[in-house]
Amino acid sequence: MSILGITNDKMTGKKVAIIGVGLTKFGELWEKSYRDLITEAGVKAISDAGIDGIDVQELFVGSMSPGLFAAQEHIGALVADYAGLTGIPATRVEAACASGGLALRQAYTSIMAGRNDIVVAGGVEKMTDVPTGLAMTALMGAGDEEWEAFNGATFPALYALMARRHMMEYGTTIEQISMVSVKNHANAKHNEYAQFQFEVSLEDVLNSAKVAEPLRLLHCSPITDGAAAVILASEKKAKEICDNPVWITASAMATDTLALSDRKSLTQTNSAILAAKDAYKQAGVGAKDIDFAEVHDCFAIAELLAIEALGFCKIGAGGKYTEDGHTKIGGEHPVNTSGGLKGKGHPVGTTGIAQAIEATLQLRGTAGKRQVKDANIGLTHNVGGSGATAVVHIYRRD
Amino acid sequence: MSILGITNDKMTGKKVAIIGVGLTKFGELWEKSYRDLITEAGVKAISDAGIDGIDVQELFVGSMSPGLFAAQEHIGALVADYAGLTGIPATRVEAACASGGLALRQAYTSIMAGRNDIVVAGGVEKMTDVPTGLAMTALMGAGDEEWEAFNGATFPALYALMARRHMMEYGTTIEQISMVSVKNHANAKHNEYAQFQFEVSLEDVLNSAKVAEPLRLLHCSPITDGAAAVILASEKKAKEICDNPVWITASAMATDTLALSDRKSLTQTNSAILAAKDAYKQAGVGAKDIDFAEVHDCFAIAELLAIEALGFCKIGAGGKYTEDGHTKIGGEHPVNTSGGLKGKGHPVGTTGIAQAIEATLQLRGTAGKRQVKDANIGLTHNVGGSGATAVVHIYRRD
Repeated sequence: MSILGITNDKMTGKKVAIIGVGLTKFGELWEKSYRDLITEAGVKAISDAGIDGIDVQELFVGSMSPGLFAAQEHIGALVADYAGLTGIPATRVEAACASGGLALRQAYTSIMAGRNDIVVAGGVEKMTDVPTGLAMTALMGAGDEEWEAFNGATFPALYALMARRHMMEYGTTIEQISMVSVKNHANAKHNEYAQFQFEVSLEDVLNSAKVAEPLRLLHCSPITDGAAAVILASEKKAKEICDNPVWITASAMATDTLALSDRKSLTQTNSAILAAKDAYKQAGVGAKDIDFAEVHDCFAIAELLAIEALGFCKIGAGGKYTEDGHTKIGGEHPVNTSGGLKGKGHPVGTTGIAQAIEATLQLRGTAGKRQVKDANIGLTHNVGGSGATAVVHIYRRD
Repeated sequence: MSILGITNDKMTGKKVAIIGVGLTKFGELWEKSYRDLITEAGVKAISDAGIDGIDVQELFVGSMSPGLFAAQEHIGALVADYAGLTGIPATRVEAACASGGLALRQAYTSIMAGRNDIVVAGGVEKMTDVPTGLAMTALMGAGDEEWEAFNGATFPALYALMARRHMMEYGTTIEQISMVSVKNHANAKHNEYAQFQFEVSLEDVLNSAKVAEPLRLLHCSPITDGAAAVILASEKKAKEICDNPVWITASAMATDTLALSDRKSLTQTNSAILAAKDAYKQAGVGAKDIDFAEVHDCFAIAELLAIEALGFCKIGAGGKYTEDGHTKIGGEHPVNTSGGLKGKGHPVGTTGIAQAIEATLQLRGTAGKRQVKDANIGLTHNVGGSGATAVVHIYRRD
């Protein structure tokens, strides 16, 4: 038995498809509540799939910290109730900012187990209704309370440590890191659901307010309200009722130590490296086959760590690879065509599902001005905390 | 497709076993932290199973509100890290007080999907480190924040409504309700892990302090710290490495409206009725075949609702059935031999796993002074909130 403990080879006999997607606008949505958001996304997804609510057999929802953000737990039943699906099994899953990715994985597993034919995976977070201090407390729940939060660490500070070390070890420049933000804002401009539909220049990023050196405001993803949902179906059901299914060919997950200080390296995200390795094995493809990817750029440096972990470039080469334009639309590996967490926004529990939706739109060929030409295989990379959880999914059109 | 949406018939080709269990003492454990508790339970379970940590391929952990109780989210990775299992997929699930039951169900599904052969399901809650007001806020997260908590409802009040209505509709007496507490304390006396290892008399219960009429202090389960873990294995692996496996023959779950006020009846827990029906179907047994059950007696009235939903007696007859002694050890359907939530304690996210452990001990024949004679088939019933989530599992020895 391997330490990874994944014996998914057994699972390749069946396939799971995404047959419907639903997304709310991302942003500071003062007029919408937590339950408004997830209901809107769920209804849109059901409508997009062309099914009825009665067809849904189970649901999973990712949400990071509704207890602190909205004084509400028991999220599965809440969502089933407000979406008019009362009765069905409804489970909330949580792994901080990777909660959405977990919901997708559990929905996928439910179908793989032969338990169900149609399952919903959703994500929701309402982050703007609380004082900033409480939002920070909630977000630091993704880190190690005893060894990080208690000692004053914040997530910008943790990612700043990773950035500094990457710059020192590999000669990565602050300009290269900043180019991630420039690219992702340029993509977000064409995404009507994005929180920030505008471009920023390299100078804008380099001159924005300091947050935790070397990271500045425009290196950081925002606080966001938003929800997302996808409808998954078994191969049989998908072929029966859907004319544009997008197939999930890999669903992988791995963990690392909760505290950054316990890791051997500050510049390699081991959970993502393990999950990517397993995902490529499940899907029978390699990094070179990936036509586009949505990765977890909670801070600009995180996108460099991601593309390195996924094997799009060598470890340490992410800065140069970005500077050379390989992650732009039209490049070797377009990354975060949706605008990423930086441009699209980052409602933490929602992000993993929103990534799957961008993958679906790209593979359907309906991504509009941000469409990747001839997109056939896509990947999503969703991270919790400073990398203690990573979830990688691979999708294909045919 | 049914509203229940459960097509588990397909799943009966495989079996899943419990091969190891681990439980901490329940109580006000001032000297132990959240992570101490779950690590202790996990290590005990791995040791009981006679496996090594390296054999564990995935883990699921139920925890209701660690964000509010311990300022910590990202629980899956935390548990993997502190149990020395870093690397493996680790997922937290939540459905308020049914979180433990959900962890068991997802671990079961992981094996059913062919994903893994050895999976851990755990539950943990550390409830005593916060001011009472914050604990109440956390617990009310199990209800409907907008329609219940905001208007001042608490869980004792919600269950008091159910008790009053049960008394009015069916003539149930406060003495009958109180006999649940007397029985469960009598059982807890023989459980070394229980928070309250002492008996209470009917007079003690009837004269205890009023909480929410007609419910008094000794009708209410306590605030508790504690953790539990079980090791699940596929049929093949269980037969290879375990000489006393306990088989899980049904894993069912259903939901109801989040708010009590939205339900047609205050005295029927529809989620439990649906889940029980499905569980009996999966296991191919009926209520009459159940040799013992652990049910969710968060308040004494809840045990009556449970035994009625499970079909041990008719709807409305729970009071009389209890008074007649049928739920005592030696009766027709011994209920809560562990002491239940009332006597054993109720660390909310832990309870569903602790119930599975009592079922395992009974089926192994190692429950000591609380052993049910010739126990062959057992059932657990785990509820979230006022009944918005119910999870039912059935177990057998051979």
